[in-house]
Amino acid sequence: MAFNKRSKIRSILEKKPIGDQVTLMGWVRTKRSNKNITFIALNDGSIIQNYQIVADPNVIDEKTLRRITTGASIKVTGKVVASQGAGQDSELVAESLEVLGEADPEKYPLQPKKHSLEFLREIAHLRMRTNTFGAVFRVRHALSFAIHQYFHEKGFYYIHTPIITASDAEGAGETFKVTTLDPKNPPLTPEGEIDYKEDFFERETNLTVSGQLEGELAAMALSEVYTFGPTFRAENSNTTRHLAEFWMIEPEMAFYDAEDNQDLAEDFLKYIIKYALENSPKDLAFLDKRASDENAKKPANERSEMGLLERLKFIIDNEFERITYTEAIEILKKSKPNKKKKFKYLIEEWGADLQSEHERFLVEKHFKKPVIITDYPKDIKAFYMKQNEDDKTVAAMDILFPGIGEIVGGSQREDNMEKLTCRMGQLDISEEELFWYLDTRRFGSVPHSGFGLGFERMVQFVTGMGNIRDVIAFPRTPGSAEF
Amino acid sequence: MAFNKRSKIRSILEKKPIGDQVTLMGWVRTKRSNKNITFIALNDGSIIQNYQIVADPNVIDEKTLRRITTGASIKVTGKVVASQGAGQDSELVAESLEVLGEADPEKYPLQPKKHSLEFLREIAHLRMRTNTFGAVFRVRHALSFAIHQYFHEKGFYYIHTPIITASDAEGAGETFKVTTLDPKNPPLTPEGEIDYKEDFFERETNLTVSGQLEGELAAMALSEVYTFGPTFRAENSNTTRHLAEFWMIEPEMAFYDAEDNQDLAEDFLKYIIKYALENSPKDLAFLDKRASDENAKKPANERSEMGLLERLKFIIDNEFERITYTEAIEILKKSKPNKKKKFKYLIEEWGADLQSEHERFLVEKHFKKPVIITDYPKDIKAFYMKQNEDDKTVAAMDILFPGIGEIVGGSQREDNMEKLTCRMGQLDISEEELFWYLDTRRFGSVPHSGFGLGFERMVQFVTGMGNIRDVIAFPRTPGSAEF
Repeated sequence: MAFNKRSKIRSILEKKPIGDQVTLMGWVRTKRSNKNITFIALNDGSIIQNYQIVADPNVIDEKTLRRITTGASIKVTGKVVASQGAGQDSELVAESLEVLGEADPEKYPLQPKKHSLEFLREIAHLRMRTNTFGAVFRVRHALSFAIHQYFHEKGFYYIHTPIITASDAEGAGETFKVTTLDPKNPPLTPEGEIDYKEDFFERETNLTVSGQLEGELAAMALSEVYTFGPTFRAENSNTTRHLAEFWMIEPEMAFYDAEDNQDLAEDFLKYIIKYALENSPKDLAFLDKRASDENAKKPANERSEMGLLERLKFIIDNEFERITYTEAIEILKKSKPNKKKKFKYLIEEWGADLQSEHERFLVEKHFKKPVIITDYPKDIKAFYMKQNEDDKTVAAMDILFPGIGEIVGGSQREDNMEKLTCRMGQLDISEEELFWYLDTRRFGSVPHSGFGLGFERMVQFVTGMGNIRDVIAFPRTPGSAEF
Repeated sequence: MAFNKRSKIRSILEKKPIGDQVTLMGWVRTKRSNKNITFIALNDGSIIQNYQIVADPNVIDEKTLRRITTGASIKVTGKVVASQGAGQDSELVAESLEVLGEADPEKYPLQPKKHSLEFLREIAHLRMRTNTFGAVFRVRHALSFAIHQYFHEKGFYYIHTPIITASDAEGAGETFKVTTLDPKNPPLTPEGEIDYKEDFFERETNLTVSGQLEGELAAMALSEVYTFGPTFRAENSNTTRHLAEFWMIEPEMAFYDAEDNQDLAEDFLKYIIKYALENSPKDLAFLDKRASDENAKKPANERSEMGLLERLKFIIDNEFERITYTEAIEILKKSKPNKKKKFKYLIEEWGADLQSEHERFLVEKHFKKPVIITDYPKDIKAFYMKQNEDDKTVAAMDILFPGIGEIVGGSQREDNMEKLTCRMGQLDISEEELFWYLDTRRFGSVPHSGFGLGFERMVQFVTGMGNIRDVIAFPRTPGSAEF
């Protein structure tokens, strides 16, 4: 016989079925008792709110009630009644109650008190049972779904690009090697090199840093596609903004120029933020409160001017500022922190790479809104970006968000075969290895564009979590691959 | 100025805007000309159908028309008119036409003729431009979206479980090593072993074979979750059903017993097949025709009795047969192929593992519908499966589909700490390494279940493609990691 005839707390709170008999199952957050009555706050993860269970010791035997402690799981059947207490519309009067699993109060680490994020990171296998992480992962889900729905409604097709790849031509960073060779006794060629012909794929392979090049192949057939998959960087970056394994969304669109690309990216970002606001109101209200408490503890000069919800609404209500790199350099050159030498990297001339401090100045101090910077010098951008007619810049764009910095990077792609191969030559990128990529320019080449969104940075932005390790279930960082 | 003011062919076919001026962009499939008129079949990947462009040499200059060959990309503006020809409702009379990119007929491999799947696999970077692969990847998208929508509507949360993992406890198969160590000169411990403390994660890591164990952690907090991510097997299986890199969907649900699990899996499979039938009618009609042509070429005894669409409708219209492993063994023992020794592996006694030939017999000959086999001997199943009271079997289920065999594997999970650790001891699985998994049983354990669906096998089933390499954009198999 099926076991799961329960109602979810989310649905009870929505439907308020006063008078109905229902069965709830979940985990106990707290228990308060006196001689006459026991109150249990039950959470089942379907929503951030707990539901109040009222147990009369004349109905539920005391032995059972004693086994109920924070973290224990129960199955409870009873009647929904209008609540007399503050803070809830209704509550459940228990008619029968079963403890499914106990949680020894001496050992269970999530006792009802404030835990630091650092401590919770060490017990990432349990932290989803807290309000903060429950909220973060439900919002993460809402954002994921919004992304799929956005592209689906626009007629984009979801493409799964390869995770294991032999191509490292993009040069986007350090890669992880993938191998089945015996590390102690790898087969060697007569010249004493590792003989990758003996490896699983009969060549050297690594974990992908981006699905873009393969995404372009798909866009050259299906017009508009997107990826949403894991990508990897073997960089020794121990910061609050870097993961070794993270998820990226990479749309690639045939027949889009740089402006179409900017329009799409802005519309997309606003859509998913709006979706989260509309579909995760309870979780975001909790996270807003949390962010505001955290903010109040900071020194005055580090405090955000806006609250979390205010910041999210601000993004969807305002047009992003669009400026060229050249304009950005002019603004930065004349800026106070540059003149007063407060920047660590002073902006002296055109061609300088923008650092995080410069991006933050533009977004947070100068424009006070999201900024799309376009037309970067070609020497600081990737080989596949479309070369502008000035012969100095490429049709790149970076989108900068307050508090986060770069959240999107993209470009129109170079669709001219000659220009592309010429640039590859300058950068010593093998045409032979990338013959398949070049075939899209050789046969029916079209103007096309695309961008990449780092998913975890987006989740950070929407949830207000300061550390990227707190927005992915099981973070992978240097020295850490727990769980 | 934005470039992309085009209409998609899908929308023109839906809206039939007779009399409107529109701009189309896409790739030329064929061109037919006589002195008075040129007909161009244009495809933009938004839908399987081509759209007919009519070009009058008095309007579009001949030099431009000459550059139009199969595979070339064009931008064409003109008026939509009711079509005189058969096969389409409307067509576009070109007023201006621009060639975006040529495709040299001497070099472009996709000339209008029949190409073998083997040949197309070698040019996987271009094969999405064919009708067959366009259809396959649009259907793959529809199935992906249906999966997210199904779980989202049921209140499940999407969890991204780790790709790189230090846990290999599940023992589901050979894994790929992930490392940043120098393969030629790896650091060694004083004992001469590889010193993984020097590796990126300071331990040995590999690519995940399943997100299940981490999914369970999330289900113990959020109730109902699912993963949809890549998984890996470093097995040297060169078959039409195996990939080294493939995508899996793994729902995990707190408060579900084995029967709830079966109910969910059956409902889920029917939902996504129904979704594809309703949302990809053109692509599936094409693939149905293709499958029927292929079927007709096979020897009589290998032919399917049902067409593709018929088979899909059959699945959604019929209840899956549910039998225990013990019942399956009885049926197989008494079966003709067993008595006549036609099975390669004869079924002699209870405890035997079911081979593909046995599964196919049950599904295709005996029941002639999908079969859920439950309650397998514990010795042929994984350690985490719930032990039944008979002490011999576990609450496992495999779902078998015609033509594909096992498409889903799942179970109720063992939620009893003592039984679980006892079984781990018997199988020599370290409790220390899996302390985090055991914590879910230690603290607030609940009955829970889950299953895994191999996504590519599902896409195979729905598209009727015989080789799994033809349902993922860039397949990874032994010796092959192209593109």
